[in-house]
Amino acid sequence: MARRLEITKEFIFALKESVRENDENVAIKLLGDMHAADIAEIYNELNIEGARFLFLLLDGEKASDVLAELDEDDREQFLKVLPSEVIAQKFIDHMDSDDAADVIGDLSEEKQQEVLLHIDDVEQAGDIVDLLSYDEDTAGGLMAKEMIEVNENWTILTCLKELARQADEVDEVYYLYVIDNDNLLKGIVSLKKMLLTNNATKINSIVDEDIMSVKTDTSSEEVAMIMDKYDLVALPVVDSIGRLVGRITIDDVVDVIREEAEKDYQMASGLTEDVESSDKVLRITRARLPWLLIGLAGGILGAMVLGKFESSLKIYPEMIFFIPLIAAMGGNVGIQSSALIVQGLANKTLRTDRTIQKLGKEFIVALVNGLLLAGLIFLYNFFTSDSFALTITVSISLVSVIIFAALVGTTIPLVLNRYKIDPAVATGPFITTMNDVLGLLIYMLIGRGLYAVFTG
Amino acid sequence: MARRLEITKEFIFALKESVRENDENVAIKLLGDMHAADIAEIYNELNIEGARFLFLLLDGEKASDVLAELDEDDREQFLKVLPSEVIAQKFIDHMDSDDAADVIGDLSEEKQQEVLLHIDDVEQAGDIVDLLSYDEDTAGGLMAKEMIEVNENWTILTCLKELARQADEVDEVYYLYVIDNDNLLKGIVSLKKMLLTNNATKINSIVDEDIMSVKTDTSSEEVAMIMDKYDLVALPVVDSIGRLVGRITIDDVVDVIREEAEKDYQMASGLTEDVESSDKVLRITRARLPWLLIGLAGGILGAMVLGKFESSLKIYPEMIFFIPLIAAMGGNVGIQSSALIVQGLANKTLRTDRTIQKLGKEFIVALVNGLLLAGLIFLYNFFTSDSFALTITVSISLVSVIIFAALVGTTIPLVLNRYKIDPAVATGPFITTMNDVLGLLIYMLIGRGLYAVFTG
Repeated sequence: MARRLEITKEFIFALKESVRENDENVAIKLLGDMHAADIAEIYNELNIEGARFLFLLLDGEKASDVLAELDEDDREQFLKVLPSEVIAQKFIDHMDSDDAADVIGDLSEEKQQEVLLHIDDVEQAGDIVDLLSYDEDTAGGLMAKEMIEVNENWTILTCLKELARQADEVDEVYYLYVIDNDNLLKGIVSLKKMLLTNNATKINSIVDEDIMSVKTDTSSEEVAMIMDKYDLVALPVVDSIGRLVGRITIDDVVDVIREEAEKDYQMASGLTEDVESSDKVLRITRARLPWLLIGLAGGILGAMVLGKFESSLKIYPEMIFFIPLIAAMGGNVGIQSSALIVQGLANKTLRTDRTIQKLGKEFIVALVNGLLLAGLIFLYNFFTSDSFALTITVSISLVSVIIFAALVGTTIPLVLNRYKIDPAVATGPFITTMNDVLGLLIYMLIGRGLYAVFTG
Repeated sequence: MARRLEITKEFIFALKESVRENDENVAIKLLGDMHAADIAEIYNELNIEGARFLFLLLDGEKASDVLAELDEDDREQFLKVLPSEVIAQKFIDHMDSDDAADVIGDLSEEKQQEVLLHIDDVEQAGDIVDLLSYDEDTAGGLMAKEMIEVNENWTILTCLKELARQADEVDEVYYLYVIDNDNLLKGIVSLKKMLLTNNATKINSIVDEDIMSVKTDTSSEEVAMIMDKYDLVALPVVDSIGRLVGRITIDDVVDVIREEAEKDYQMASGLTEDVESSDKVLRITRARLPWLLIGLAGGILGAMVLGKFESSLKIYPEMIFFIPLIAAMGGNVGIQSSALIVQGLANKTLRTDRTIQKLGKEFIVALVNGLLLAGLIFLYNFFTSDSFALTITVSISLVSVIIFAALVGTTIPLVLNRYKIDPAVATGPFITTMNDVLGLLIYMLIGRGLYAVFTG
């Protein structure tokens, strides 16, 4: 019953054979009932000619579904080798307006124009032009134009006729959207309610007016938050005066939610652009370099700090050995603290008006961790080192650095958030680097002071 | 039109006032049409008595929705103060079976029994007992029992009657699930198709048999992957011989997707348990300590490495200054490399049969980054240090450490993945710590060698 298919090496091999031998029958049979998402997955296995050969075998509906599922980069590369006319008539004509706008939006200005002029269905072309005007990261950029709109004065029967008329165009119908004569959104009617209501009833007697909607300029992040929080599968989009202009479905929002989470993860890992391991060397390098430069600057600052204490290091050379420990611990604790805050802010479980309490709690957690670790390193040094000054210095420095790093890691994302800067940039290399340097400073200061006490 | 409401400080204040004064009318008016998800959000603002006071004002439907939206910890705490009878009749009776099973699953064995015995609706109690038998992280643990099942031999009209009969129980109906006389799942019928088909038609003439389904023991991760990849809003669950036992809706899966992404992020940030900043000090400490212990061990190893080179450090003391730079850079690069791999594995965009290519690419990216950064630090040292040996040593070490860290960061998650260990554990402090130590070793070895060359 399931159309799902494990994509085996044997399958890929057979498919490549069919491409090499230009054997359309075998290829069609292999692709058979495969889901578009699965076909898109094997795109990476093929060269561009192979992909074109297979694409042109698929019927328009399936081919355009596959195109919509492709990675942006792969799609761009693939569309480059196709004439505008083929793009328009083989693909765009069969696509939902939101997918079509995404695809066309990635083309060059010039090619966009050409493709738009070759679309046979003028309504579709118009919808795409409308959608292209919205920012990608807003409700307008997420929404599709395909939905069933019905007038509040219609009967169920008239609504049913409208549904039948548009049934081919709108794949997934969850609700009918009820509008008045001015196109203002009045509410929604679920298909379940339609099925359970007499055909002669007027639609406005069963309309649910107590619904959520967003404006075209609502950020995609907020759209995702709303649909997630209120468990919605579809969300109507209205313009600034409340006229219905589109709807967003949950599948598009799932991508937003995942991308948001991935973005935070990438930031924390020191990647400044949305990259994948399949991207080009140049792009991956560019995404990594900014953080590494910060790390380099931090390293040079660290060298300067140590340079300032050169004389102390000469007198107490055993302090050198624990430089990596102090630096690393400051970085680790800083990341842990900031990650908790960043995540709490991202999923809205954190109340920002309780900064003092947060800091107090972080202080306690850091103190507990710090004392534990300092105790362990105290035991280690007590038994392996003959310098009691070193033993004391490392332990006290470790507690201090851990507490200090925890407070920095907690404060920085909260401050950034207050100034509307994405707190995710605070995690990862930035906080690590900062805590590295400050940790070294604390270590050297405590060391110099304590050694002076112990050695008089 | 929208029920959404910004939760202002004034609102919270007024609500607390109404609780303090035991003023039911004001409280009811304030909560008014608020969505359950919004009411759950203000739970944290109240003490346990305040929460109980408000909860008992809500009607059963709303109260149970709010309960289902609460954090697990908050819910547990709240249910502790309620007698089993109230839990059963005020909450569980009104809940969908999946939410009810989640709530009951968190109670103690003894209380579970009590609550189950107090549920009036025996069918509901039976469903919950069934659901409790599945592992939380499987399709069985995610699914609900509420769905519209119809026999393949029924006409549309009979199906409509079944829909009407169950309409109150099943909130969101997207499909009818068609089964045969043995309860085997045959396929689905969308409500759209129902609306557009004559009532006398037999349901099996319009059933869509080409659908996805999962087994009860399919992992929730795979369920999420399937629903996300194939853009499904509902997915039927069958037992080992194909009998329909439940359905999973997209809203439950969105949570799984977000939690997966958050888990990776937490791992990368050195948190070993799923913690939130609102958790107790002990729990947060416990989640952080393992990684910090690894960091401590790494620091001690680092101290040992430096100890081995004590004599070199005495001869070339300026090498000390760049110890933090080398250690930090190894850590940063390692995290970046591993993050790309971990993420690619998590969202299935990475093909694991191309290890050699991946490593080759990582090598090139690291080489480019390494040469750039080495060039910069070369210039810095060239102009600030009078030791050319140091200038050369730091630059060559930096390139080597960056390349080495990138290869380690790429290899470890791939190896872990091959042995079915979650590669997310490889990122964060673990790789940082390892690269710290190995970086130091490389630095000291190169330094000793080069100084020997330059100074004869």
